[in-house]
Amino acid sequence: MNQPTSKRLRVDLLPQPELTYPDVVLVVDVIRATTTATAFLEAGASAIYTAASLEQARAFKDHDVVIAGEEGGLMPAGFDYGNSPREALEAKVTGKTVVMATTNGTRAAHLAATTAKHVLLASLYNAHAAARLAHELATEEVAILCAGAGGKVALDDTYTAGVLAEFIQLMGLYDLQDGTLIALATRRTYPDPLEPLSLSIAAQSLQRVGLEADVPFCAQIAASPAVPMLEGRVGDALIFRRYQPQRTTASGED
Amino acid sequence: MNQPTSKRLRVDLLPQPELTYPDVVLVVDVIRATTTATAFLEAGASAIYTAASLEQARAFKDHDVVIAGEEGGLMPAGFDYGNSPREALEAKVTGKTVVMATTNGTRAAHLAATTAKHVLLASLYNAHAAARLAHELATEEVAILCAGAGGKVALDDTYTAGVLAEFIQLMGLYDLQDGTLIALATRRTYPDPLEPLSLSIAAQSLQRVGLEADVPFCAQIAASPAVPMLEGRVGDALIFRRYQPQRTTASGED
Ligand SMILES: [Ca+2]
Ligand SMILES: [Ca+2]
Ligand SMILES: [Ca+2]
Repeated sequence: MNQPTSKRLRVDLLPQPELTYPDVVLVVDVIRATTTATAFLEAGASAIYTAASLEQARAFKDHDVVIAGEEGGLMPAGFDYGNSPREALEAKVTGKTVVMATTNGTRAAHLAATTAKHVLLASLYNAHAAARLAHELATEEVAILCAGAGGKVALDDTYTAGVLAEFIQLMGLYDLQDGTLIALATRRTYPDPLEPLSLSIAAQSLQRVGLEADVPFCAQIAASPAVPMLEGRVGDALIFRRYQPQRTTASGED
Repeated sequence: MNQPTSKRLRVDLLPQPELTYPDVVLVVDVIRATTTATAFLEAGASAIYTAASLEQARAFKDHDVVIAGEEGGLMPAGFDYGNSPREALEAKVTGKTVVMATTNGTRAAHLAATTAKHVLLASLYNAHAAARLAHELATEEVAILCAGAGGKVALDDTYTAGVLAEFIQLMGLYDLQDGTLIALATRRTYPDPLEPLSLSIAAQSLQRVGLEADVPFCAQIAASPAVPMLEGRVGDALIFRRYQPQRTTASGED
């Protein structure tokens, strides 16, 4: 038996251009981008492209894709879907590529992608699966990168990071950092996930546009085993696909 | 009697260049800059100048000032003092100006100073006095700006923000924001301030240079009534002096 060696379990509460990621990153924008991306995979989408802007998403319109995203919480003109996970789960997207354009979550994913070995999209909705996969992939560090909102830390993302950190700690020895302890403290303060999510500025913004029913959806813990994993790029967009355990038969890779 | 109107109680866990401050800011770098600045005022210093770099601090050397600061936790060459609050409290600085050069705390103070009406330096050491003064000065918002460390949130600063936020909430009605709820959760998770301060990366760095005895000093709550308050600038440095209630002798208010 090998001596267990501890990896780092790091939580960054805000994306910062100077931060680098040597290993695995779980990107969290729980209300709503990373929840919605997972819901589109649950609905059968074959890939999620995260576009860096509404314009870049629109540039995919001629292709055989559906385009989803938000502007001030609502579906932008010319888009097929908004950024609602309830809507995503019911969407007719089997076998299709969904191009998503959101603000905070996309920025965090693109920051992580510049340096990380593995980038996963995580939420409460896929928390068990995302935590397990991050733990299995990591050789030195699991970083949880919260999207935040407008340059400020977000209660909903910080809480979700705490839930993920708790699960990851159950699976192995990890050195914790300041951000991790803050996220764990936040998680332990609120036994019911609906409370911190409802208190967040993100939920308040949804309420102003009548989309508050998305909040209980985002507060479900571990309802989905789907984990969007970065597989490549197309132009400035990142390509995420549902993680599939690799079958190492002679020929059967995919 | 006036209807009470609520002000905002905001906590920013990291300085961000795009953030602006319309009213009062409490800058927190509890290990150690804002604790040490307060200790110099307790020791009788007439002013603290926060210099933007070691070089800028050295440029004051010809003047009748003492120069304090740190580089990797230790006193830089040519300086009179390090950044230790224990040392600051015993320093022979009565009536003198202390020029301080630190990294994270200075950056946060300078960011706040670009837009805020009032900038105060806060720590656990002066927590009651700083919270009370911020509450009294504020007309629309008290912002607590944590210095963080190297682009990451700091457990010690976040905890201190939670302590300050608790005190401020005792004094009036405030609308809370996401960062405030995270700081309060962190504060409530650790009843003994020495625990989160000792767990922080800042404390671990001090331990590596044999200065861990500064941590219990920084963990004292409300031992000092001195609050460094921004009064002006000299070159690129900010000038802080101990807040003195204004005596308007005609009417005796203070
Ligand atoms: Ca969000
Ligand atoms: Ca289409
Ligand atoms: Ca510090």
